[in-house]
Amino acid sequence: MSVVTLIGAGQMASALTFPLFENGHEVRLVGSPLDDAVIDRLREDNYHVNLRRTLHDGINYIKCADVKEAIKGADLIVCGISSFGVEWFADEILPILDESIPLISVTKGMLDYEDGTMQTYPEYWQEKLPEGSKLRLYAIGGPCTARDLSDHDPSFVAYCGPDFETLEWIRSLFSTDYYIISLTKDVVGLECAVALKNGYALGTALAIGIKEKLGDDGIDHNNMKSALFQESVKEMLELLRIVGGGVDNIMFAAGDLDVTVSAGRSRTVGLLLGKGYTIEETLEQLQGQTLEAVVIATRTARAVKALAKAGKVSIDDFPLLMHVDGLLNEHATLNIPWKKFERHM
Amino acid sequence: MSVVTLIGAGQMASALTFPLFENGHEVRLVGSPLDDAVIDRLREDNYHVNLRRTLHDGINYIKCADVKEAIKGADLIVCGISSFGVEWFADEILPILDESIPLISVTKGMLDYEDGTMQTYPEYWQEKLPEGSKLRLYAIGGPCTARDLSDHDPSFVAYCGPDFETLEWIRSLFSTDYYIISLTKDVVGLECAVALKNGYALGTALAIGIKEKLGDDGIDHNNMKSALFQESVKEMLELLRIVGGGVDNIMFAAGDLDVTVSAGRSRTVGLLLGKGYTIEETLEQLQGQTLEAVVIATRTARAVKALAKAGKVSIDDFPLLMHVDGLLNEHATLNIPWKKFERHM
Repeated sequence: MSVVTLIGAGQMASALTFPLFENGHEVRLVGSPLDDAVIDRLREDNYHVNLRRTLHDGINYIKCADVKEAIKGADLIVCGISSFGVEWFADEILPILDESIPLISVTKGMLDYEDGTMQTYPEYWQEKLPEGSKLRLYAIGGPCTARDLSDHDPSFVAYCGPDFETLEWIRSLFSTDYYIISLTKDVVGLECAVALKNGYALGTALAIGIKEKLGDDGIDHNNMKSALFQESVKEMLELLRIVGGGVDNIMFAAGDLDVTVSAGRSRTVGLLLGKGYTIEETLEQLQGQTLEAVVIATRTARAVKALAKAGKVSIDDFPLLMHVDGLLNEHATLNIPWKKFERHM
Repeated sequence: MSVVTLIGAGQMASALTFPLFENGHEVRLVGSPLDDAVIDRLREDNYHVNLRRTLHDGINYIKCADVKEAIKGADLIVCGISSFGVEWFADEILPILDESIPLISVTKGMLDYEDGTMQTYPEYWQEKLPEGSKLRLYAIGGPCTARDLSDHDPSFVAYCGPDFETLEWIRSLFSTDYYIISLTKDVVGLECAVALKNGYALGTALAIGIKEKLGDDGIDHNNMKSALFQESVKEMLELLRIVGGGVDNIMFAAGDLDVTVSAGRSRTVGLLLGKGYTIEETLEQLQGQTLEAVVIATRTARAVKALAKAGKVSIDDFPLLMHVDGLLNEHATLNIPWKKFERHM
């Protein structure tokens, strides 16, 4: 039995308590500063109000104020904050962690810099660590909705990090018959693949919105949706190459794209834009929800534009991303640039 | 204006008459030996009984007996037979073609040989040509259902062949605002990508059948379906490498997988097997339909097993394909080998 402390009581971290608890580990679920009400309710009857699932009885629910206690004696730390808490995690949590205890993050996303560099969160945190820190960072990616995982639906993800030995040990803590875990040392490749998919899920879901708006016209419109899916895979493959990730990670990008287009907020943003709502109207309808697709699509487009300006890539290779960026940030009218998808390959 | 003769009045060839006719070309649609009734009805009122769409008035509908007349004066020949007519096409049609007129095929599939070699239809036909023939073969791949194309839904495909000059000319005949065409000289890569996807669409659709069988259990089961989708992309990537196709063709494999899982016969076979029917019961329910997914999955599995026997690949890299093959050919019980999807990458 090991002791696992999850920091951030969001949906995915909370879903991860299912395999961990069922494998007999001591599970400590620590809320972020925004999670006090979630923790209060969990303490009452194990019900997670956002995940809308009842967690196992026996999990330790801890408020953020007591995080230092919660990490004492832990064998593994899991970062389960949303991408909007990445800086908070760097500033408040990294400094108090024991550098001999591995950290694995389930936060998906990416940062971009003025020169067009895209950076994964594990890389960002690595830079934030004090000089000489030996803290080892690992991360989780792949198609896995928190609710389906909580419901024990077969879920196939990947864990990445600097060495297979620790990865195998971490996997042994989480692995169950329904939670399938591949391992890779290609952190940049995996993390970029699964970050990128949010923006492209928005792009692919435009077709779902267009279809809904057209109503019952007797047309399946499967070709249109798969056209956007296909273009997304192509552009994600190019982006993987730009960041130096291995092309095999396209399996995780495509798998995660598939699950993200099936359900969730990224899909909803694309669907509403596809129906013809402006970004302002869309955000209005989704008020109060964290919209990672909007952030990641904007960051990726900004990076690509910076790289294009420096002559390192061609903007013409990313017509779907550019159109999504236009919809999100430049009040563009919905008009998918189909003909720009035509390439010599 | 050009003259285009399509041989085989199946659904896809018939759907291709829409962009061709709308671009002002003379269109001749020639039935296969099995299509006489289809041609009779088309002549009556332009209605295609299998496609269930009315074609444009002004197309020339021609029975197979008059194929020689139909190819006279044509600028382009389109092979639109099903994969079950590949030998017939090689034996009966190739010998009567003018070798100066390009041939483009929309038939998807692959052959396998005892040593594990997988061969695309353009390669097979090339071998069948008389010594010294200058006939140039091109082919079409990508996510495109015939009905959606007929309905002018945006459709994004690729045309492949030995030279970009002719490919660009062929594209100019077909290209419309709703029919988007990339070009590639990687015939093996494109044709294998879009052939393979049939077997994997069957594999991915197992999840849809499992979900249907479970009924309304309150679980989305999106993770399960995307897990199979992701594993399919991984195995198709490996197969692309085996046949020597460029990895960028994974975009067409994934896009075509997406559309094929959405609708059609390959999906239905997987769905029925996922519900727990045996292959015999499944075939019984789909009596009279051509089931290319069964053929292609069986051929691909046979090739992989032959290559593994020769020590060239590891059977362990293809757990989903092997399970599908077991269901189709070895009376295996449905039991997706989830744990075998776990890899070191």
